[in-house]
Amino acid sequence: MKRNVDRLSRHATSLGVTLRPHLKTIKSVDAARYVLENGNGPATVSTLAEAEVFARAGITDILYAVGISPDKLDRVVALHRQGCRLTVLLDCAAQAKAVAAASKTSGITIPAMIEIDSDGHRSGLTADDPALIEVGRILHEGGAELSGVLCHAGESYGAVGRTQQAICAEEERLAVVNSAAMLRKSGLPCPVVSVGSTPTAHAAQDLTDVTELRAGVYVFFDLVMAGIDVCDIGDIALSVLTTVIGHQAAKGWTICDAGWMAMSRDRGTANQRVDQGYGIVCDVAGTVIPGLIMIQANQEHGVIARRPDFGGAVPELPVGTRLRILPNHACATAAQHQRYHVIPETAGADLMTWARFGGW
Amino acid sequence: MKRNVDRLSRHATSLGVTLRPHLKTIKSVDAARYVLENGNGPATVSTLAEAEVFARAGITDILYAVGISPDKLDRVVALHRQGCRLTVLLDCAAQAKAVAAASKTSGITIPAMIEIDSDGHRSGLTADDPALIEVGRILHEGGAELSGVLCHAGESYGAVGRTQQAICAEEERLAVVNSAAMLRKSGLPCPVVSVGSTPTAHAAQDLTDVTELRAGVYVFFDLVMAGIDVCDIGDIALSVLTTVIGHQAAKGWTICDAGWMAMSRDRGTANQRVDQGYGIVCDVAGTVIPGLIMIQANQEHGVIARRPDFGGAVPELPVGTRLRILPNHACATAAQHQRYHVIPETAGADLMTWARFGGW
Repeated sequence: MKRNVDRLSRHATSLGVTLRPHLKTIKSVDAARYVLENGNGPATVSTLAEAEVFARAGITDILYAVGISPDKLDRVVALHRQGCRLTVLLDCAAQAKAVAAASKTSGITIPAMIEIDSDGHRSGLTADDPALIEVGRILHEGGAELSGVLCHAGESYGAVGRTQQAICAEEERLAVVNSAAMLRKSGLPCPVVSVGSTPTAHAAQDLTDVTELRAGVYVFFDLVMAGIDVCDIGDIALSVLTTVIGHQAAKGWTICDAGWMAMSRDRGTANQRVDQGYGIVCDVAGTVIPGLIMIQANQEHGVIARRPDFGGAVPELPVGTRLRILPNHACATAAQHQRYHVIPETAGADLMTWARFGGW
Repeated sequence: MKRNVDRLSRHATSLGVTLRPHLKTIKSVDAARYVLENGNGPATVSTLAEAEVFARAGITDILYAVGISPDKLDRVVALHRQGCRLTVLLDCAAQAKAVAAASKTSGITIPAMIEIDSDGHRSGLTADDPALIEVGRILHEGGAELSGVLCHAGESYGAVGRTQQAICAEEERLAVVNSAAMLRKSGLPCPVVSVGSTPTAHAAQDLTDVTELRAGVYVFFDLVMAGIDVCDIGDIALSVLTTVIGHQAAKGWTICDAGWMAMSRDRGTANQRVDQGYGIVCDVAGTVIPGLIMIQANQEHGVIARRPDFGGAVPELPVGTRLRILPNHACATAAQHQRYHVIPETAGADLMTWARFGGW
């Protein structure tokens, strides 16, 4: 985990941008201490509950990177009153009007970013959409703060290899840089130009005119990221510890006590080059056992079996054997658990426990 | 929810068997008060954490219906010492030996059921497997209590309609009844003969020689159960409340703030007759909006759009509109949340809050 955190931190520095880690993956104040270079932020979150917990823990610069709805603005204002500069995200006039109105009513100039779409993945305006200027003007002239533009190249999760991901990164960069230029040409401010997804953050070679970079799952990595060559399997820093509870010898099944409740239902590798089932099986020390994956999962049962194409020998795994499963998607798997059991840097030291939180 | 609970309760009574509700779906002491006819049990659980929480809440007859591993027996013994009769489940000699040894060491005669397989779904021995008698003998002669046999016809989730599910129910019944006969013929006791899955529990017409029935998801039901005709969509008692946060008009997308973190990644209807995406969209009052489903989900974003085959009109859903999403799989969706907000029976009364728990 430390190596993963250091890797992206160095890369952001080399590109001349501020790293604003997305804390939605870790959802843990204890873990955030190892992820943020400065305990006060900047940070990105995906829920107001995250913003509230991290604000209480002393993080004062938080971006809530999911489109704001008007009913949430009371909680946004409350966070500002508690000393947290919380920036909201939006992509339409209705949202901008609500943020402007809440700014006027509360007397707090709520900072807002406009979401830009580079790849049709999800939300956001394109740089040439006339709504961009309209939304910017509503914010800037209505009493809110137009902080800048933000893009998340979500389609990069389907881009295999550094070359393809670098193309996504450049599309992501151009989308926000062009949007910032449009706003400035119309006399509107655009101090922050923000990009990021774990694949594009690592692949980006040039972030000229970008000011900040966001990523989240890079802290732990997972099989989906390994499947598109953002990391190696050996970089995956999160696993689920499980125990063998039975066998169906005729089918070659070993049954363990980690089902989808422990792994999540995420099957993010299903459409990748190598389908990893519900995860890769390791021994208790974390060494991959060649040929074994979790082929199916019920609520509290995982079925471990040979990969369909594996012809080699696989070890006997008697009842009681402890194993580790590397997950498809760290955000989803971690969310199934209330705490992390953390191997400390000092060999032989006791495991640490980091609490997680959830909710909205 | 009350109607669902009453329906299966009446059916169990009519079949002359004891209902042992599976509390893995609700994972809530507050909810259990409405599910159990008797506050002391019987109940079924899927983790030792559930057994511990429900035992503290006064439930004294609990079946832990996931194969036991030797490392968990200390916690089993501790629950017995606290006054909870916890029955474990197993299907091999190694487990039986460990339970027998723990019984001798602790001085507590640990009750154990032997898991029987009727359909190749997951764990268990077939009625004609010589291991059945071996395992029974190890328990009975080794100091544990051979409580009986148990079967879960998990393949019934793939059986569409009452007729097919009744066939699964009869296979499930025959598997345990035949296994009980084999044990008794060998001079071994088999007082409890337990069957159950939500589809077979509802479809069973005759449970001669069976003593108890188990089911869990029937309390809430979900789209997977509706998709195989175990319930109607109007019986689904669990929904996720969400708010519209944006649109991509050109694609016909409405974006809401319930993503897979709120819905779970469960896509259990993907291979059913009607793929419901990540769920069916209702208005805030719970009335289905024809033609709209959640077609995709990111961590905190849901994309709502027309079903591919729907040609009718769909309503405008402005930013701020509140909606309810009916889930594919109630166990998985409920597990993403820390509490239920419960509509009381008395119209106009305040919502109740029922806490959930998780962990192992």
